[in-house]
Amino acid sequence: MGDAAGIGPEVILKAITTSAVKDICFPLIVGAPRVFAPLISSLQLDLPLYLYREPDQVRWAVKGLHILEVEGAPDYLPSPGREDTEWSRTAMISVARGADLVGRGEAEALVTAPINKEGIHRAGYRFQGHTDYLAHLTGTENYAMMLIGGNIRVVLVTVHVPLREVSALLDTEDIVRKIYLARDALLGFDIREPRIAVAGLNPHAGEGGAFGNEEEEIIAPAIEECRSEGIAVDGPIPPDTLFYKLARGRYDAAIVMYHDQGLIPIKMVAFDRGVNITLGLPFVRTSPDHGTAYDIAGRGIANPRSMIEAIKTACSLSLRGRSHS
Amino acid sequence: MGDAAGIGPEVILKAITTSAVKDICFPLIVGAPRVFAPLISSLQLDLPLYLYREPDQVRWAVKGLHILEVEGAPDYLPSPGREDTEWSRTAMISVARGADLVGRGEAEALVTAPINKEGIHRAGYRFQGHTDYLAHLTGTENYAMMLIGGNIRVVLVTVHVPLREVSALLDTEDIVRKIYLARDALLGFDIREPRIAVAGLNPHAGEGGAFGNEEEEIIAPAIEECRSEGIAVDGPIPPDTLFYKLARGRYDAAIVMYHDQGLIPIKMVAFDRGVNITLGLPFVRTSPDHGTAYDIAGRGIANPRSMIEAIKTACSLSLRGRSHS
Repeated sequence: MGDAAGIGPEVILKAITTSAVKDICFPLIVGAPRVFAPLISSLQLDLPLYLYREPDQVRWAVKGLHILEVEGAPDYLPSPGREDTEWSRTAMISVARGADLVGRGEAEALVTAPINKEGIHRAGYRFQGHTDYLAHLTGTENYAMMLIGGNIRVVLVTVHVPLREVSALLDTEDIVRKIYLARDALLGFDIREPRIAVAGLNPHAGEGGAFGNEEEEIIAPAIEECRSEGIAVDGPIPPDTLFYKLARGRYDAAIVMYHDQGLIPIKMVAFDRGVNITLGLPFVRTSPDHGTAYDIAGRGIANPRSMIEAIKTACSLSLRGRSHS
Repeated sequence: MGDAAGIGPEVILKAITTSAVKDICFPLIVGAPRVFAPLISSLQLDLPLYLYREPDQVRWAVKGLHILEVEGAPDYLPSPGREDTEWSRTAMISVARGADLVGRGEAEALVTAPINKEGIHRAGYRFQGHTDYLAHLTGTENYAMMLIGGNIRVVLVTVHVPLREVSALLDTEDIVRKIYLARDALLGFDIREPRIAVAGLNPHAGEGGAFGNEEEEIIAPAIEECRSEGIAVDGPIPPDTLFYKLARGRYDAAIVMYHDQGLIPIKMVAFDRGVNITLGLPFVRTSPDHGTAYDIAGRGIANPRSMIEAIKTACSLSLRGRSHS
């Protein structure tokens, strides 16, 4: 469900009523029914609502909005666009319940709607967001964020850190692990021989050390290690030419060193339809790449495109996983 | 002429024989005739060659390849793709001669072909490239690099420095000067009320200080200062959403904090046709945004698109300058 004060529930309802989603999966919403009833009405949807306490009650064959109710949700409605600690707590409880369902095989993939970082901190959660919370819940130490926009896929080596700290956070073995995670994810996309590009950190990938030496000292050794293991990986590639090559299909994914190195190109080609995938978890998890968008929450104007793409990607990955097993 | 061992002379010849260039200007090449005679033949161009020692000899009405010969060029041909210190020196002498011509009004704009940084250092020049050399030659202290690709224009606050040093190099007054240079350049493009966006440095523009504080401490004060002077400037804008807005015409230019923040989006929308403009010089100067490309020099396969765009932009800016005077 995500943060009920944000656009999450709205984009969920809009997404699951499109044929793009209805035709490919059965969505079970994990969250609070209180949030959805008024939304169905304000969005003028013709959608019968079914509530469950346990997954074995779910009537999978019936069309409608199926909600698995979590416990402890507030007995009041959230104010759109206003952070509410109790609703932030409910969002996190819903994530945990969803992860548990998927982990036990009651559902085949987890798609999450946006949460509010400050809100979850106020609610007592010591996590940056979904990704590290899910890693914690599943005991996963080796994980990474992949973003997909159009035909560009990137895996982030560092994420939400100040730019000036990026250099000190780079580590050869960490980059090696991210290359492996990317390779495994691409195999999961049915790409037989994944070709992976690794970005440099500096202008012109350091230009032989003139503009920085992280390429030679940290990044290149990781590439050599993976290459010696038979992975088709190139780099360090000058960041400004990398995405041109990526967009034209020269590589199946890029390992990028910092948030905006990957997000600038992703948002350029797929501003409203980027998808976030957590690599390394024991199950498929995707999400739209936008936030709670408090500025437009409750106005009925949120764009469900990214949520639709997140659901489609989750379906596609879980179907492929099934066909391999 | 640029570095004769690179693709500069080839893209010049290819560019000036297109109707896109022939129809709008009279190109006078500043350099060594020795380099061009064999190229005309290998590119199978039908182009009479005219040599001059002084600009007052130039037969502006005659079609052909007009070369203003510089002194001291080597008496041997360069090897394509191999740095030659003497030819690097000749490239720099040609730049100085070209700047002198334009500075004295003998020509209306300067377009430069790529040079080799190591080569010019070996030749004894203590400059990073054209931009700071031209600033030195003209006594210009306040200058900046603007890059244009498609409908995206960016002005770089830092350029060829390691990413880890960018934060320490940011300075409020420097950003103010770059906003003014951008504003003046946009007025030169006949944009009446330029709208300028300023990028943040960090993910999500720092997210209120959580991912860095350069936005609040350095960038925002520069924006406020310019806004109080009546300039239409917004920011600091999260880098990953900025270029989407820019590409859709929400702003006429963006001020970016580091090389790849501007170059990644430019190369994505205009990989082979980016143009570099030096702002702040007493005359119009443009160049293609690629380098000497030693790997393909001498093979006849260099793409002249960026050089064509550089010449067109130079013409357009100098004509507009003339119509205002």
